Amino acid sequence: MSIKTKIKRLAIIGVGLIGGSFGVSLRYRGAVEEIVGYGRNIKNLGLAKELGLIDRWTTNIDEAVSHADIVLIATPVGAMPAVFDLMKDAIAPECIITDVGSVKQVITEAFKNSFLDQNVHFIPGHPIAGREVSGPAAADGDLFVGKTVILTPEQNTDVDAISRVQELWQLVGSKVICMSPERHDRLLALTSHLPHVMAYTLVNLLKDEEDQQQDTLNFAAGGFYDLSRIASSDPIMWRDICLTNNNEIVSRLESYQNSLSHMIDILEAKDGAALEKLFNRARETRERIKQLNKH
Amino acid sequence: MSIKTKIKRLAIIGVGLIGGSFGVSLRYRGAVEEIVGYGRNIKNLGLAKELGLIDRWTTNIDEAVSHADIVLIATPVGAMPAVFDLMKDAIAPECIITDVGSVKQVITEAFKNSFLDQNVHFIPGHPIAGREVSGPAAADGDLFVGKTVILTPEQNTDVDAISRVQELWQLVGSKVICMSPERHDRLLALTSHLPHVMAYTLVNLLKDEEDQQQDTLNFAAGGFYDLSRIASSDPIMWRDICLTNNNEIVSRLESYQNSLSHMIDILEAKDGAALEKLFNRARETRERIKQLNKH
Repeated sequence: MSIKTKIKRLAIIGVGLIGGSFGVSLRYRGAVEEIVGYGRNIKNLGLAKELGLIDRWTTNIDEAVSHADIVLIATPVGAMPAVFDLMKDAIAPECIITDVGSVKQVITEAFKNSFLDQNVHFIPGHPIAGREVSGPAAADGDLFVGKTVILTPEQNTDVDAISRVQELWQLVGSKVICMSPERHDRLLALTSHLPHVMAYTLVNLLKDEEDQQQDTLNFAAGGFYDLSRIASSDPIMWRDICLTNNNEIVSRLESYQNSLSHMIDILEAKDGAALEKLFNRARETRERIKQLNKH
Repeated sequence: MSIKTKIKRLAIIGVGLIGGSFGVSLRYRGAVEEIVGYGRNIKNLGLAKELGLIDRWTTNIDEAVSHADIVLIATPVGAMPAVFDLMKDAIAPECIITDVGSVKQVITEAFKNSFLDQNVHFIPGHPIAGREVSGPAAADGDLFVGKTVILTPEQNTDVDAISRVQELWQLVGSKVICMSPERHDRLLALTSHLPHVMAYTLVNLLKDEEDQQQDTLNFAAGGFYDLSRIASSDPIMWRDICLTNNNEIVSRLESYQNSLSHMIDILEAKDGAALEKLFNRARETRERIKQLNKH
């Protein structure tokens, strides 16, 4: 697969794992002439250039975006409204802005508040390709291969702009699915945000125990180890997700609590048949998920 | 490392992932003359022989244990009391019986109820080396390398018998730690049983959603995928663990519910500083666990 129209200048706002991987993925596939990185951490930006993720970097956002045909925003979600405000006066007409945030409704609103009636296109996006590692050193030109990317354009979004962003994600190996920002936020609260909060909370419970009995962590192997992997995820990124998709996450947590209460009832009743049935249902579902994730 | 006294006959009661791996691990290291497998599933037993995990098999438990110097019980926990009863009349004096069950108090009591004052030694054990796969085909001669094995002998247990079992686990590459059965059950309820119940419950919550909206499972990637891995674990094994370590698991689930309620409070207050602090604490703890699991 090759690109129809090469990107002249791609501006990446926030050159970490996802931003850096997007840049280098497009470069490897010959889809971009120049990549400019913008950020606040000069050390990270220097490293990103050294690793070949970007061609050059700047801490002046106007300079980064002013002649870009595509702008990718890959900062933590909480920083995105400020980024829109900072860049709005410098952005070129017909520029396509896209992002990789894990929350979509708040970001879409923030875009509208900043850009009002300006002639730019915003295609909100979310590659489901996170890792518990972060920073440009972890960037990978094949990070998005086989992954799903959700785009959440609105009814009146320019169709050509949607196609352009869709083409870029397909080029780097992803499967693109469009849905409403509302559905995205509700769905991801279940499939991603809830599991992260669960993992962080479980690890803290273990830490409480270790504060009482020092060798506890030695036994956190096997199932605990895998289940807690995502508790190594970036705390700032996840704080922002929790603050911006707040209602949906609380709602999912409450559902999960109800499920756990039901499980406690079954355990207290020592109902072996009910346990077996629930565990079988979960195992069958997990096996289907495993099949779906094979690529 | 080589063994001081070779095992003449090892009887493995239940030749699945753990039982089969124990046998083949000892065989590879030249520690055993003959391995006899006992079980109820002839197909599994035949496969175990074919794979070289055992030398021969029988469905007559008297025949399996009567001339064994070591008997390993590797059935689901719920079957162990019946296994003790079945074998008690055939077992040789001074025989060492050990097991690999994930729950220790109930098993220790069951042993005492069956064997009363017989001159045999029981060294309860638990290798923390489970996997979401099961059955003899998954057995692996290096499964226990670098893993922790907990033994829970009592005050009056024969010291030579403890040393003998300890030596076997060390020979197959494990680190052995002794503790009381009470501490084992309370600790494992946190580090293993709670995570399994959490994962099963989460996957069922996703299944509930998928029953409403068909493509939901497509988005169960990334964090969800890893976190839910252990929901593929054997339902019968986990039913038994939940029924036998019932009180401790309920108690840990209630603590976890309290932690989640605290998290909901913080989310509803949109307290970003508190979220960041909790996430950082969990991340630091997970990084320490990662270091401890390197071998």
